[in-house]
Amino acid sequence: MHGDSTPVSIGIVGVGKIARDQHLPALAAQPGFSLAACASPHSRVEGLPHYTTLEAMLAEETALRAVSLCTPPQVRFAQARAALAAGKHVMLEKPPGASVSEVAILADLARQNRCTLFASWHSRHAPGVEAARDWLASRAIVSVNVQWKEDVRRWHPNQAWIWEPGGLGVFDPGINALSILTRVLPHAFFLTSADLWVPANQQTPIAAHLAFTDERGTAIAAEFDWRHDAGELWQIDVTTRDGTLRLAQGGKQLTIDGAEIDVGPEREYPSLYTRFLELIASGESDVDVRPLQHVADAMLLGRRHLIDPFVP
Amino acid sequence: MHGDSTPVSIGIVGVGKIARDQHLPALAAQPGFSLAACASPHSRVEGLPHYTTLEAMLAEETALRAVSLCTPPQVRFAQARAALAAGKHVMLEKPPGASVSEVAILADLARQNRCTLFASWHSRHAPGVEAARDWLASRAIVSVNVQWKEDVRRWHPNQAWIWEPGGLGVFDPGINALSILTRVLPHAFFLTSADLWVPANQQTPIAAHLAFTDERGTAIAAEFDWRHDAGELWQIDVTTRDGTLRLAQGGKQLTIDGAEIDVGPEREYPSLYTRFLELIASGESDVDVRPLQHVADAMLLGRRHLIDPFVP
Repeated sequence: MHGDSTPVSIGIVGVGKIARDQHLPALAAQPGFSLAACASPHSRVEGLPHYTTLEAMLAEETALRAVSLCTPPQVRFAQARAALAAGKHVMLEKPPGASVSEVAILADLARQNRCTLFASWHSRHAPGVEAARDWLASRAIVSVNVQWKEDVRRWHPNQAWIWEPGGLGVFDPGINALSILTRVLPHAFFLTSADLWVPANQQTPIAAHLAFTDERGTAIAAEFDWRHDAGELWQIDVTTRDGTLRLAQGGKQLTIDGAEIDVGPEREYPSLYTRFLELIASGESDVDVRPLQHVADAMLLGRRHLIDPFVP
Repeated sequence: MHGDSTPVSIGIVGVGKIARDQHLPALAAQPGFSLAACASPHSRVEGLPHYTTLEAMLAEETALRAVSLCTPPQVRFAQARAALAAGKHVMLEKPPGASVSEVAILADLARQNRCTLFASWHSRHAPGVEAARDWLASRAIVSVNVQWKEDVRRWHPNQAWIWEPGGLGVFDPGINALSILTRVLPHAFFLTSADLWVPANQQTPIAAHLAFTDERGTAIAAEFDWRHDAGELWQIDVTTRDGTLRLAQGGKQLTIDGAEIDVGPEREYPSLYTRFLELIASGESDVDVRPLQHVADAMLLGRRHLIDPFVP
């Protein structure tokens, strides 16, 4: 089936906020895919065949070639396994699982079933990211500072799963920063210490300060905070011997020593689906667990501070 | 230097409980190594050149070919990096680091410096483990039950680091069970849920219940508890269609359907050093992070229950 021009028939699983905000518009604009069905326990998409479960969709929609999972991470493994076992190519929203270990098992299953598995990190497709990576590749890096702050009430309304174990809390947006960092920095890094602030009535942190380093001893600091009600601050500063690079607005804006570089318009999710299409065509998978690994390390090594209850 | 019969000159770093209980006797009985020096901020070993830091030992003891790190995991990366950079072969006590990500960086450093890195898991060298692995390799496994319980006051006196972030708490012994499980079970498994009990005055859990599964849906349950004052229970039961295998006493005793198999005497640490010697001779490394990965997953995905303060 590789190389022909027939659109890839795809089903969406989990019609929640991210599916409506991003996946459905991106798929509608992407002629390489043909959206054939959706599966979600309660939500429907106007004009599209609907199933309450992935299993029902797989049983009925036999022409599907791919599945995109927009469900919370806690249920992603079972769904991905079922789709791969049925021979479907699978794209996973971030994070790719509730545990790091399960993702390696999915990657093996994809290989065994000759399917593509794409563990997507949408922030890596922000327009400034590849240009930042290219610029940093040959630079001597002195320090890195990450500020990733937003108002949880604005960005995650009614998402109870995000406060549950495996829901990641403030690492749900913070992992976007980590997915960019692991892409743009030329050397692997690791956590040395972390402070996590956890509301007494919740399981996951509402704020985190992280200190990383690499084998050269580079200081890499990150602050994630969900209690930021003055707009959004999604920003990475990299100080090098040749000047300072700033990725702002989540990667949409790139400046070097204050001079803005034209990186084109934001199209993260359209770019994700283009990448998924390329992976399917070439018979490859793309599974990089490092951003989730850093979060697991932060939960392993972080010092927890219990704070007042927080009602989302 | 490969293949000659000169003993490998080795230095011990961190002369604490595990070094005195296990490493020093094992090295004394192993003619392949010659213990040349030790580095530890306060403790000395009678009759052995002593340094307060690894760096001082490396600077003076230029004939050293290998270093064994018996320090807490929080300082292990910096020490391993320094030793590898000086061209020494390195053996790490378990766990191999305070984060999972740092271990991959150490493995790269070992490759670059053509040194052996041995991330040791002493419980894998318990006498029943390989026989259990062989017996299970062809069996259909129905379920697995792990009980790993001991009295923390008996086994970890005065070890403040174990209650600190990165010290792992009850996972410090529990990871021994996980190091055996990842060796004896024929299929990769992953965590699906966990409950962690954390004393209000400590950072790490005193008890944990873990539920794992694999791609076949096998139920794998583990209970770790440090509040067990009736001897030790270090036991793994694997129910198969051909009968039940039990590894008891931390892997020293193997029974199948109640019939004990003769697996020989306990010699975990002597066996570790024999393995280290073989790795050095063949120019290989052995770095398996899966046991630590499972612990990180448990800290990522576990539900925390705060309980009364515990004074060790």
